[in-house]
Amino acid sequence: MPSQARTIQARLLELGIDLPAAVAPIANYVPFVRTGSLLIVSGQLPLDNGKLPDRFKGKLGKDVFNEAGQQAARLSAINVLAQAQVALGDLERVRRVVRLGGFINATPGFTALAAVMNGASDLMVQVFGDHGRHARTTVGVAELPLDASVEVEAMFEFE
Amino acid sequence: MPSQARTIQARLLELGIDLPAAVAPIANYVPFVRTGSLLIVSGQLPLDNGKLPDRFKGKLGKDVFNEAGQQAARLSAINVLAQAQVALGDLERVRRVVRLGGFINATPGFTALAAVMNGASDLMVQVFGDHGRHARTTVGVAELPLDASVEVEAMFEFE
Amino acid sequence: MPSQARTIQARLLELGIDLPAAVAPIANYVPFVRTGSLLIVSGQLPLDNGKLPDRFKGKLGKDVFNEAGQQAARLSAINVLAQAQVALGDLERVRRVVRLGGFINATPGFTALAAVMNGASDLMVQVFGDHGRHARTTVGVAELPLDASVEVEAMFEFE
Repeated sequence: MPSQARTIQARLLELGIDLPAAVAPIANYVPFVRTGSLLIVSGQLPLDNGKLPDRFKGKLGKDVFNEAGQQAARLSAINVLAQAQVALGDLERVRRVVRLGGFINATPGFTALAAVMNGASDLMVQVFGDHGRHARTTVGVAELPLDASVEVEAMFEFE
Repeated sequence: MPSQARTIQARLLELGIDLPAAVAPIANYVPFVRTGSLLIVSGQLPLDNGKLPDRFKGKLGKDVFNEAGQQAARLSAINVLAQAQVALGDLERVRRVVRLGGFINATPGFTALAAVMNGASDLMVQVFGDHGRHARTTVGVAELPLDASVEVEAMFEFE
Repeated sequence: MPSQARTIQARLLELGIDLPAAVAPIANYVPFVRTGSLLIVSGQLPLDNGKLPDRFKGKLGKDVFNEAGQQAARLSAINVLAQAQVALGDLERVRRVVRLGGFINATPGFTALAAVMNGASDLMVQVFGDHGRHARTTVGVAELPLDASVEVEAMFEFE
């Protein structure tokens, strides 16, 4: 766990994460809304430079290897952070990652959903330390937009 | 975008939308709960006069045409508004549509989920203007209650 | 409906419910987060003494009988309450069950999702009376962690 003196920006550097440009929604909605001290971030896909890499396309249990699924969850979470940075100006304002919703594009028999979603959860704890520990719901869905393998939505508390 | 002087009621009229009677839940729960300044609306189906029209029944990618799916999303969103009106007494009290959750009853290969859900998102922006711009998560699910093609849940901020 | 003088603990006794030890998450996240007056509880599975009983494993519409599904939803909700008790110290602090999210592991043709989820909703009303009446979204998903038949997440308002 990083010491409290470390800033979020320093942790991102340490993790080798260069936050991408926030991705524009693929439809008529916005990527985040603030209400009171809550920040709601729309479901994010594992887009890389605005494109869905082939290895993050398709279903866990058929088209996508478990490790690629985990990387897709991690990249979706990085895209969540990119949105949060735009929303708040500075990720230091995050007081708590409240909740992640994880949607895994999976075949009906693929039950290792939690392990895939850990790609997102682990990142949050790496970046925010204890403040990154969140409530979570993970489910396997029949399909996702663009046939992405993972989608991650988030709720933050900020100051 | 309508001018600020236009009321929500006037926009609904202009859109030719006569809000239906709020639909009673099909099980042991309530259609909405208010907590602080947040209004949480239960998942709404595309019911018309309390019945599910045949064209809004079944799966996108198999039984339901894309345009009918979009109309189902729009009607689900209208039913969300009907609940919000009962909850708040007056839709003018809506300060912001915070989030929509879109669940599309889809075959495992149907990836045009965002376009279907736009039926709900577009309606919110038509009715509330910029205050209707919301965070959103859209997923394709294996099945929905009554075999409805779409289900839409919502969170509003109100005053 | 129990009288107002009855405490939550008394109702649990009356229902013959001995709240289990709160279940540790099966991955890198926490079972609940409090933000303001809201308590967010992570998706809970129908675990019994930390194990998934065989009758709560698999899909509604294929492996799991409807009544077992309803019992799975009820047990998931009991596990939600176990988490809420740890989070708040005392369930008397619950002011309202705000929302339940119900995810049913279902075959694409299984439409009796609401009846299954009633196992969770009915429990909340039995325990909290009118304060247990909640907003709800129920969907049928392609798969759940550990191949559980049901997963229930919750949002409470507390004092």
